[in-house]
Amino acid sequence: MAVNHLDNLSQTLLMGPGPSCVPDQVYSALSRYTIGHLDPRFIAIMDEIKKRLQTLMQTENSLTIPISGTGSSGMETCFVNLVEPGDSVLILKNGVFGMRMEDLGTRLGAEVEVVEFEWGTPIHVEKVHACLAKKNYKIVAIVHAETSTGVMNPVAEIGELLKDNEALYLVDTVTSLGGIPVETDNWHVDALYSGTQKCLSCPPGLAPISLSEKAVETIKSRQTKVPNWYLDLTMIINYWAGETRAYHHTAPINMLYGLYVALGIILDEGMENVFARHRQAHNHLVEGLEKLGLSMTVAADSRLPMLNAVNIPEGVDDGQVRTQLLKKHNIEIGAGLGPLAGKIWRVGLMGHTARTENVDRLLTALQDVI
Amino acid sequence: MAVNHLDNLSQTLLMGPGPSCVPDQVYSALSRYTIGHLDPRFIAIMDEIKKRLQTLMQTENSLTIPISGTGSSGMETCFVNLVEPGDSVLILKNGVFGMRMEDLGTRLGAEVEVVEFEWGTPIHVEKVHACLAKKNYKIVAIVHAETSTGVMNPVAEIGELLKDNEALYLVDTVTSLGGIPVETDNWHVDALYSGTQKCLSCPPGLAPISLSEKAVETIKSRQTKVPNWYLDLTMIINYWAGETRAYHHTAPINMLYGLYVALGIILDEGMENVFARHRQAHNHLVEGLEKLGLSMTVAADSRLPMLNAVNIPEGVDDGQVRTQLLKKHNIEIGAGLGPLAGKIWRVGLMGHTARTENVDRLLTALQDVI
Repeated sequence: MAVNHLDNLSQTLLMGPGPSCVPDQVYSALSRYTIGHLDPRFIAIMDEIKKRLQTLMQTENSLTIPISGTGSSGMETCFVNLVEPGDSVLILKNGVFGMRMEDLGTRLGAEVEVVEFEWGTPIHVEKVHACLAKKNYKIVAIVHAETSTGVMNPVAEIGELLKDNEALYLVDTVTSLGGIPVETDNWHVDALYSGTQKCLSCPPGLAPISLSEKAVETIKSRQTKVPNWYLDLTMIINYWAGETRAYHHTAPINMLYGLYVALGIILDEGMENVFARHRQAHNHLVEGLEKLGLSMTVAADSRLPMLNAVNIPEGVDDGQVRTQLLKKHNIEIGAGLGPLAGKIWRVGLMGHTARTENVDRLLTALQDVI
Repeated sequence: MAVNHLDNLSQTLLMGPGPSCVPDQVYSALSRYTIGHLDPRFIAIMDEIKKRLQTLMQTENSLTIPISGTGSSGMETCFVNLVEPGDSVLILKNGVFGMRMEDLGTRLGAEVEVVEFEWGTPIHVEKVHACLAKKNYKIVAIVHAETSTGVMNPVAEIGELLKDNEALYLVDTVTSLGGIPVETDNWHVDALYSGTQKCLSCPPGLAPISLSEKAVETIKSRQTKVPNWYLDLTMIINYWAGETRAYHHTAPINMLYGLYVALGIILDEGMENVFARHRQAHNHLVEGLEKLGLSMTVAADSRLPMLNAVNIPEGVDDGQVRTQLLKKHNIEIGAGLGPLAGKIWRVGLMGHTARTENVDRLLTALQDVI
C-alpha cells in the first residue's frame, strides 16, 4: 500500500448529526478477536445485548435486537415486515426522516397518507387526533427526534391517543435513543428503530429495533411473504431468540462487540445521568451561541438536546465555516438537509460528545472562523 | 457491567464457513478514530476501496462498492435492484445459497425457474446451454463457491454461453472472492456480490458488489421504483460515486476502515500468491484428512480450496467433535447445512486462515477428538 489513508486520521470532535464521538472502550471492543456467529460465547453476548437494549428502550418486548445494517436498515426492517400492499399508513411528517418513511411506504405498495407540519415545528397532537377520528389506519408512523430540523415530536402524547386504537404505532428513535427517554412500553409503541452512531456512541453499522407482541402477531399473520430476505424478521428471530439459534446470515460480530460495550457504558453511567448530561450540554450550547449573536431555529419548548439547529447568519458562508472548523479546529458540524440546506447548521451533542467542555471548544472555534 | 463477556475471548482458529481469521492490521484498523461519512478524508478512503475492489474483482465496472450489510445484503441488493415483478429469472441451484436466490427471487415477484443439480456436484454447462436455447431470461443466477457443499461451479464457462445473450449474469462470489480468481469482466458477469468475512479476512458486516454498465442501464430503465429504500442503488451511487457525494445513509465508517486494510493486505501479497496459498493449504488438508482415514464429499475436480466438505465417518458424533474442537483446542469448524446436516463437516481455509500450519493444528486436534 503506497499511501495509508488511515495514518492521517486524527481524532475529530464529531458534533454533526452523527456519527458522534466514540469512547475508547468501544474502539477497543471493535478490535477484539472475531469468533464464530454460532459460538456459545457469542450467543451469550447477543443475549446480553438484547437485555441492555430492553433496559434502554424501557420495554419488555422479547423481539428487541440489533439489525445488521445502519440506522436506515432499521426503518426498512420495520416497514417491510409490517406493511403489505394496500395497507393504510399514516405518516406524520415534519422533516427529511418523515419524508423517507413516506418514500419507503410508497415503494412497498402501502396507501400512504401524509399529514405534514411546518419543518422546524413539532407534530400537533390535536391534528393527529382529528385524523384518527376519521379513519382506521394499520400503521401510524412518526419520527421522535427529527434529525433534519432538531425538533422533538410528542411521541408520548400521540401514543396516548393510540392506546386503544387498532393501529400499530411505529416510531423512529434513531437520534433520540440514549439521549432522551424512550419509553417504548409506556408510550404504547409497537415498532421502533434506532442507530448506533448517534447517542449510543458506537460507530455506524447497526440498527437496534424493538417490536411489540402485537407487531409480531401482525407479521405472523401476513398474507404475503416479506418481500425481503435479508430483513425478514420471521427468520432473523430464530437466530436471535430461537431455541436452536438457527443460522440466517452471519452477524456482524465485531460491530456487535462495540454495541455491547457502548450500551454497558450508558447503563453504568445511569440513564438519568446520561439524559441530564445531554440537557446540560444543550443548555450550555444555546447560552453560548446566543452570546455570540447566533439564534436557534426551533422554539425552546420543542428543541432536541442532542441535535441543535442553528440559523446561519446572513452574509456568512456556510461551507467555508464548516470547512474551517474541520480543517483548522478538527471539529465537524453538520449542514442543513433539503430545504434547510445553506440556512442552518446542525450541531450534534450526542452520547459521548455531549459534554460542556466540547461545547466550549466549539464556541471558541466558531468565534474564530465566523 | 458486572461481567464483561469480551474478557473471555481468546483467539480462536476460525476454520468454519466464515468468519475467517482476521489479521492484526485489520483489527487495528477497526479501532481507528471514527470520522464523518462526508469528511474529505473518508471520501478518499472510499475511493481507494472502490479501486482495490475493482482490482480484486478484475473489473472496470464503475459501480463497484461495498454495501452496508453482511454478505446476504449483497444478494438482496443485486436482486431487488435488477428484478421487477414478472421478470423471468433462471436459477442454477446445487446448494443452500442457490436456494436462497430462489427464495428471494420469488419474494420479489419474479417468475423463477430453477434447474437443480445434485448437491455436492457442480452445475452442468450443457444442461444450462439447453435451457438458454429454449427461452430468453432476464437474469441467469449462479453461486460461484457453494458454501453449503464445497463445490466450485463453472462460472467462466457459463459466462461464455451468456456472452451474446440478452440475460444479465448474476453471480454469488461470497466465498470465492479473494480465494480463487473472480474475473468479472472476462467472464461477462453483470452483477456479483461478496462478503467480507470469508477470503477477505475482515469481520462480517459489508458486502462488496459490482454491476456492469448493462446492469446499471437495467436499473435506470425500471418500470417501478426499487421496493427497498436502504439498498436502492440509484441513490447509493450518488454517495459512493456522485460528484457531490450526496448523503444517503451513514456509512459504516469503521468497518470500511477494516475492509480498506484487508484489501490492501491481499493486493500487497499479490493475488496470484494468495490463490496459490489457498490451493496449497487445501492440498495439505486433503492429504492429511485422507491419512486419517477421512474422505472428501466432493470429487477432486470440482472442490473449492477454501471450503472443504468432509464426510463424517459412521459412528462419530458430529456435535461432540465440533464442541471438543472448540472447547479443548479453540478451533471452529462448520456443521453441514440443510440436507447435509450431520453428514458433513465444513472446513474453511479462507483468507488469513489458509495456511498449512493451521491445517496441521486442525489435523492434530482432529486426531485427538475423533
